[in-house]
Amino acid sequence: MPKLIDHPKQKQAIAEAAWRVIMQQGMQKASARNIAKEAGLSLGAMRYYFSAQNELLAYANQLVHARLAEKIDTIFQDDVQPKEKILRVLLCLLPSEEEPMLETSVRLSLKMAAAQEAETSGKVPDAAYSAAKNVISYLALLNLLVKNADLELETERLSALLDGLAMISLANPAEAEEAKIKRLIRYHLNSICTESFSEPK
Amino acid sequence: MPKLIDHPKQKQAIAEAAWRVIMQQGMQKASARNIAKEAGLSLGAMRYYFSAQNELLAYANQLVHARLAEKIDTIFQDDVQPKEKILRVLLCLLPSEEEPMLETSVRLSLKMAAAQEAETSGKVPDAAYSAAKNVISYLALLNLLVKNADLELETERLSALLDGLAMISLANPAEAEEAKIKRLIRYHLNSICTESFSEPK
Repeated sequence: MPKLIDHPKQKQAIAEAAWRVIMQQGMQKASARNIAKEAGLSLGAMRYYFSAQNELLAYANQLVHARLAEKIDTIFQDDVQPKEKILRVLLCLLPSEEEPMLETSVRLSLKMAAAQEAETSGKVPDAAYSAAKNVISYLALLNLLVKNADLELETERLSALLDGLAMISLANPAEAEEAKIKRLIRYHLNSICTESFSEPK
Repeated sequence: MPKLIDHPKQKQAIAEAAWRVIMQQGMQKASARNIAKEAGLSLGAMRYYFSAQNELLAYANQLVHARLAEKIDTIFQDDVQPKEKILRVLLCLLPSEEEPMLETSVRLSLKMAAAQEAETSGKVPDAAYSAAKNVISYLALLNLLVKNADLELETERLSALLDGLAMISLANPAEAEEAKIKRLIRYHLNSICTESFSEPK
């Protein structure tokens, strides 16, 4: 009798193995062989779930965004002050105590890889972009945005800024750097809002 | 008699082969074996120049920044209006007619890879960061920055924004996207300057 295998769980376990390989060794080591080894599977067994490496990487990418989207939903539903909520959402997109480095590093590496794959690029829902869009809409709803702010351009600007900051933060995981990035997030919010997001003195 | 080989040139040729592999196949295919093949060398011959894959990738990274720095220097020395000069420098950091996709894609892929390598990270001079710093200093010198602008934070913000935009641009190489990104660069400059960078009507 064949062994009963929980397929969705096995696919997730393989995606998580891919994340660990990407995090610990970089995209340049994310071969099907290395990922199968990390997942404790033979290359043949892994091919049963993903017939090609780019299929596996696309799934690993989808899963990282799905998990991030869940986390951001939870923060948006938290019962905290609006400005505090916005800061928490934004900080959740950067490596910090709240978001383990693993996730950001893997998310950006896979984003770069997806950008290079003409077929899959732009097809994965980007949880970080959605978060930026929700933050800007929320600020508009709270009537906090400066006059003449262009919602679409502010969304693009915030989303690009967050991806860029995440990259800087990965390159300099020092604590001083983290403080600087938090200061920059507040600085940016202050520049687009009519009320201050400054730290309490 | 051994063949005479121009060593620096051969190292550059290998680095350029690495760029092509990264651009065409992604970091996940940037193995020493694939790069040697692209460079038309045996793995053994390539090891004469670079004993390890991370050494080769670090050199490919340095070279991409050295080339970019040269290009930016040339633009800064061009005899054009200051605002036009600033726009040209910034657009040169994004994939567009002025900067082939190859360079940005490779630069960001290698930046991500370097960020994951604790030893090398932060050691390569980042030509894009230097350009952002020079643009902010230049704006301050021209007395164009808004009052209360924090030069250090504006540099960080511009640099992160450019890296993030470059990533978005790689994922959506459509022409419409390029126009949007140009609009966003002007929008950002307008938000930090006392004079408009708007397109001529």
